[in-house]
Amino acid sequence: MTDEELRAIEWTGSGIRLVDQTALPARLDEFVVRDVDGLVSAIRRLAVRGAPALGAAGAFGVAVAMQQGAAEGWGEDRLAREIDRIRAARPTATNLAGGVNRVAPLVPYGVQAVAAEAEAIVAEDEAANRALSGHGADWILARHAHPVRALTHCNTGPLATTAWGTALGVLRELHVRGALGQVYADETRPLVQGSRLTAWELARLDIPHLIQVDAAAASTIVRGLVDAAVVGADRVTASGDVANKIGTLPIALACAEAGIPFVVAAPESTVDPATPSGADIAIEGRAEEEVLCHAGQRVAPEGSRAHNPAFDVTPARLVTALATERGVFEVSAGQLPAAARSGAAAAPAEGPENSAAEVVTG
Amino acid sequence: MTDEELRAIEWTGSGIRLVDQTALPARLDEFVVRDVDGLVSAIRRLAVRGAPALGAAGAFGVAVAMQQGAAEGWGEDRLAREIDRIRAARPTATNLAGGVNRVAPLVPYGVQAVAAEAEAIVAEDEAANRALSGHGADWILARHAHPVRALTHCNTGPLATTAWGTALGVLRELHVRGALGQVYADETRPLVQGSRLTAWELARLDIPHLIQVDAAAASTIVRGLVDAAVVGADRVTASGDVANKIGTLPIALACAEAGIPFVVAAPESTVDPATPSGADIAIEGRAEEEVLCHAGQRVAPEGSRAHNPAFDVTPARLVTALATERGVFEVSAGQLPAAARSGAAAAPAEGPENSAAEVVTG
Repeated sequence: MTDEELRAIEWTGSGIRLVDQTALPARLDEFVVRDVDGLVSAIRRLAVRGAPALGAAGAFGVAVAMQQGAAEGWGEDRLAREIDRIRAARPTATNLAGGVNRVAPLVPYGVQAVAAEAEAIVAEDEAANRALSGHGADWILARHAHPVRALTHCNTGPLATTAWGTALGVLRELHVRGALGQVYADETRPLVQGSRLTAWELARLDIPHLIQVDAAAASTIVRGLVDAAVVGADRVTASGDVANKIGTLPIALACAEAGIPFVVAAPESTVDPATPSGADIAIEGRAEEEVLCHAGQRVAPEGSRAHNPAFDVTPARLVTALATERGVFEVSAGQLPAAARSGAAAAPAEGPENSAAEVVTG
Repeated sequence: MTDEELRAIEWTGSGIRLVDQTALPARLDEFVVRDVDGLVSAIRRLAVRGAPALGAAGAFGVAVAMQQGAAEGWGEDRLAREIDRIRAARPTATNLAGGVNRVAPLVPYGVQAVAAEAEAIVAEDEAANRALSGHGADWILARHAHPVRALTHCNTGPLATTAWGTALGVLRELHVRGALGQVYADETRPLVQGSRLTAWELARLDIPHLIQVDAAAASTIVRGLVDAAVVGADRVTASGDVANKIGTLPIALACAEAGIPFVVAAPESTVDPATPSGADIAIEGRAEEEVLCHAGQRVAPEGSRAHNPAFDVTPARLVTALATERGVFEVSAGQLPAAARSGAAAAPAEGPENSAAEVVTG
């Protein structure tokens, strides 16, 4: 195991050091972003991805823009436009805009103040991840003797977050405690974040794992090869419904069939009180080429079209547990974090339209 | 729509004309096999695949071996060894061996007799497919107003069979009756028979379709985008459990969640009275490279391993309907074909070991 925690995004004092996620797993390439063009390009080509990582990238990006502006003599208008470009680099990524918006009021106080607030976002994310991982591991171990064999989906480790990870963080915590058995990692078509990134993270941590096609997840669960499924969340609604990477719902259905826990691991910032339920979420469709091509090669007939929803919605009644930094909530038994309960009342005023299509997946 | 029925395998009088399924969907290449080496190679490289098509290939293959033997002066021993090579070209393909075994007793009566029996296998397969498609379409239309929007998985059309198709045959029958709406075709990782072959067949028949990743199937069903799922079967046990391409089980779970029919379309020859239930089926594991690579390119880290089950088992209680050439059996309501009922009694004498790992998928 590598002792040093992987940090895929870090402030160098004059720029943002990023792990190029497009080069993984073949190479661990790092590069430093020192201007807005470089950051926008890195975000668009998915060199940096994952909701929490994008939040940090947006926040540090404001500092990058301020430094570039000082060097190139930008006026206030130009600086504001450049910050807007960062905010809009991935339109559906609320965390990206959230990171920008959180540090923006500090621009008048200088680069140091902005960078310090961005560092605070990173520190909060890591602390939340470590806390929710501990709570999740405690909950699982109270119900199952180790070693715990687990299934996970997509990428929720240090590459997707700022450090440690969410669902992968729970598995890491079990591993650190000597309580983790075999991990089945879904490849996660169409962008194969499971094969490319999660497997790379698991290998780096010496966690025994097997990659499988997404279609195998239900069978692996129902055959009794795993004791729990642990996944992340892009958004948790006020009712406890969970929007997450496409392919999460069949895992939850299979867990219910097999009678094993379906555990969602996510910081409370993922709970969106403005979205009453899963029915209020518009399902984002992504580019058809992602489905029609494999490793860049067209596989489907030229005339065929694709249906490419980015995520699915798992109803609250299938969510055995939601692990957040404040504890574990047994959602299917009616427990919800305070953030969701407060939101349920506020929701009607917001309306579903405002919250549609705001889910980030990557 | 192309009026002429696609025939991916046909006897020319002196050889076997095959559509090269590895060249699809880019090209519709045909070639004629005239010797045993050529046939074994075609089977191994999946130029011909699909259980019923392999049955025909095995039967015609005996005729090919006899002709080659006559030309090259083989003795009886040599001919028997060459026929054994055909039978073993794909060890888990029971239909292949079944086709060889059905015509083998006719070898003493000459090539014409063997070829005629092989033609009978093809004719029976086509007749069964057309009949079960009619029964399946009748059953669906008795329960749902057209247009019927449907989801299917893997490849079950004329390429996989000798003509018409099974699950795809039901969809074709609905289409011919003007009662078929949008079809969602799962890409069917790892070998993407859905994207490559089913989409090509659907396009050729002018059937509106969208290809999706397998992980999207459950969401498509639960969101109400389809009215029924129609899939094939590699084996139906005496209890009505269904072994089929990996990724079938989550479709059945989602249909139960959504309250829509999960329809299995398969000839009665697929019902295996020697296998009491799904628990008695050994799940065949295939090469790890199929999962770790996409379009021939390694995607996963070099050190990572894969879990690659070829098929999964859907319990009988999730099978709303089984359409065979003798009618539709509402399996989840306790109806089973006579073949399964007679088999249930015979099963204990056979034992589960004999039936393990005999499922063909392709």
